[in-house]
Amino acid sequence: MVLPLTAKINKSNHLEIGGCDLVDLAKEYLTPLFVYDKDDISSQCNLYLDSFSHRSLETQVVYASKAFSCLAICQLVNQEGLGIDVSSAGELYVALKAGFDGKKVFLHGNNKTESELRMALDAKVGRIVVDSFNEMELLSQLLDKRQMNQSIMIRITPGIKPSTHQYIQTGQVDSKFGFDIDSGLAKQAVKRALALPHLDLKGFHVHIGSQIFSLHSYRRVIEVIFAFAKEVSNELDFKLEELNLGGGLGIKYVATDQPSSIQDYGKVICDNVISQAKSLKMPIPKIIVEPGRSIVGRAGVTLYRVGTIKKVPKFKNYVAVNGGMSDNLRPMLYGSSYQALLANKAGSQLKEEVTIVGHHCESGDVLVKDVMLPDVEVGDLVCTPATGAYGYVLANNYNKQTKPAVILVSKGKARLIIRRETYEDLVRLDEPLT
Amino acid sequence: MVLPLTAKINKSNHLEIGGCDLVDLAKEYLTPLFVYDKDDISSQCNLYLDSFSHRSLETQVVYASKAFSCLAICQLVNQEGLGIDVSSAGELYVALKAGFDGKKVFLHGNNKTESELRMALDAKVGRIVVDSFNEMELLSQLLDKRQMNQSIMIRITPGIKPSTHQYIQTGQVDSKFGFDIDSGLAKQAVKRALALPHLDLKGFHVHIGSQIFSLHSYRRVIEVIFAFAKEVSNELDFKLEELNLGGGLGIKYVATDQPSSIQDYGKVICDNVISQAKSLKMPIPKIIVEPGRSIVGRAGVTLYRVGTIKKVPKFKNYVAVNGGMSDNLRPMLYGSSYQALLANKAGSQLKEEVTIVGHHCESGDVLVKDVMLPDVEVGDLVCTPATGAYGYVLANNYNKQTKPAVILVSKGKARLIIRRETYEDLVRLDEPLT
Repeated sequence: MVLPLTAKINKSNHLEIGGCDLVDLAKEYLTPLFVYDKDDISSQCNLYLDSFSHRSLETQVVYASKAFSCLAICQLVNQEGLGIDVSSAGELYVALKAGFDGKKVFLHGNNKTESELRMALDAKVGRIVVDSFNEMELLSQLLDKRQMNQSIMIRITPGIKPSTHQYIQTGQVDSKFGFDIDSGLAKQAVKRALALPHLDLKGFHVHIGSQIFSLHSYRRVIEVIFAFAKEVSNELDFKLEELNLGGGLGIKYVATDQPSSIQDYGKVICDNVISQAKSLKMPIPKIIVEPGRSIVGRAGVTLYRVGTIKKVPKFKNYVAVNGGMSDNLRPMLYGSSYQALLANKAGSQLKEEVTIVGHHCESGDVLVKDVMLPDVEVGDLVCTPATGAYGYVLANNYNKQTKPAVILVSKGKARLIIRRETYEDLVRLDEPLT
Repeated sequence: MVLPLTAKINKSNHLEIGGCDLVDLAKEYLTPLFVYDKDDISSQCNLYLDSFSHRSLETQVVYASKAFSCLAICQLVNQEGLGIDVSSAGELYVALKAGFDGKKVFLHGNNKTESELRMALDAKVGRIVVDSFNEMELLSQLLDKRQMNQSIMIRITPGIKPSTHQYIQTGQVDSKFGFDIDSGLAKQAVKRALALPHLDLKGFHVHIGSQIFSLHSYRRVIEVIFAFAKEVSNELDFKLEELNLGGGLGIKYVATDQPSSIQDYGKVICDNVISQAKSLKMPIPKIIVEPGRSIVGRAGVTLYRVGTIKKVPKFKNYVAVNGGMSDNLRPMLYGSSYQALLANKAGSQLKEEVTIVGHHCESGDVLVKDVMLPDVEVGDLVCTPATGAYGYVLANNYNKQTKPAVILVSKGKARLIIRRETYEDLVRLDEPLT
């Protein structure tokens, strides 16, 4: 099982997280409910900070807030000492509202609008990761009007395809992101950034993709980016001061998943950066990493109530819960697998294979296929672990379902961090015809 | 091109819908923007009503509001004389708020909760389409407490797989929906419904799937359901008074799509129902159909502003717009294809093949692949037609994007029907940590 750090089965045979009985939480906060283990998030933050502490290397760990962005979580990772990566003005808005100093913000995006760039300049963000020539020109113009400079990084597509779902492969040449090395675009981008006024080019950003298990692709991307940095620093007035290696470390969703540890990831990155710099006789740049999923993914679980059980003879036993593709789109979007257990019968013997489906008016609305559960009854509480990343942030109101509540638990106490939507919320933006 | 009914290119070479210039609309209401052609929706409603008018058959056309549910659209289809199909308490809430009489409501759902059923009984909905034994028992108990009766239909899975995306095939035996005929579950369901107090069984509901082009599957499902109805009416005290054939008629998304017409669909349904009833010597039941996509799909288009153009040598020309998977999930979810044009250069010569991508931090965020456009420049207005169904209702706040505004146009006037979300909206449910 891939449960949060503090998860255990208590004397009532109920699942407990952060010292809170999930059966009690479901009664108090209703279902569907996202429950986050605060200590798990803090622990992951600290594991990252430790794993990227190195005596001969400056490093910075930056939370990729697209994995789960809300005020409380941004505040928590800020307290833990991480920076924040935002991919839009909306994520920037939340980060600032949560109290992040602009200096700790990395702004990403393949198509930043003028108003997004203005907002970033207003907030004096630490780094803008520039993704296109259009953006570079626009940014320089905006800076000129304000007579200020901005530290930037250039996003490079290194031409590496890691083994993951094609939707979340991002390092390949044929990509909407960044500048490709082989075609010469990346070098042109460096030249242009150096030539344009008000842009202070600190280095490069690369992100090869998400939910990556093998560290080999990271070794390879460090080689590629250093070779490129060496080439351009020989030819141009450029010095690689900072290297942002993006995120992408995978987490365990199901028992067969074998992600690398954060410690190994840190070691591979630090060791390879140092050895590349040494062998190419280059100064060692500051290293930035941007974990998202591996900070919040395992910490979050979703709780649902079983409403209908349907046994289709010769086919499946369908267990229908009061949530689905409106709160967890990943099974439909990426074909992602999850585990499941009954929070109110957490230690009971597994008896039957079932398929857990949602309540949406759509056949694809399947949360977990072919999973073993104890005897299931209407009213049982299904818990799907590892829904902390890319769950709530992809939530929608399909079939006019209201978005679930989110709570944070720690040391026996639960705290509401996102209120449940109401029916009134569903029409709050609507204007009647007459 | 698959544009709304009133679309035309005006003297300024701009696309115009409902007498409104889309370039002006984008300036006034900003982008991304959903624009709906009111006359197109009214026309489709009337085409359905006409196509299902038959001198020897009672029929009812019911709007499947899951395709696009908001106050104004519900009010419009109500004005046009349609009933409404809701698949959740949320959709029921919107329908009632829009002024629908409960009697015109069909309540669906594979996993209706007790509170959903209570809400439906409070609203005195016309029909509850019962989907499971659990629901049947619960409904009967709730009715008993209130000492009232409820007209119901039983949802049958006819064992038919139409040719469409597997996520939206719903008629197959191995389904979370309804009761299967072959295994005997459907007959058991009829027996149980007849035995339970307070349930007034009017007939059956079948829905084979969505975005279906060929009418053959509809002919086949009518045969199957009549054979079943004949069998149970011979054995049990049951008479088929009503037959709800669901929805599913496909629409044209791209030039190569060849959906059947609403007229042909109406004719095939009415003719086959009559001939089946006659050949089996059964009374002709009332027929209900539940179109959603074919009512609102063509009427809606989405407008985006081009922000970044990136030519990856030897690969694609990427045109990035200020929307994407947060406002149109169908390309990623179902691999759906769309067309595109430039609203501000609507009649200009097509010059280059591009791929239109969104601004989300994800490679899969591609709206339209390999489409021919005139010379594209930053600031151009991309219009994707046929986004009226399953667009806004699947919208989400991924990467903290705000949901677009929606307007309804007719006879030169535009009316805001859903307000654009603001940054403040993004944190309106958030509770800070401290």
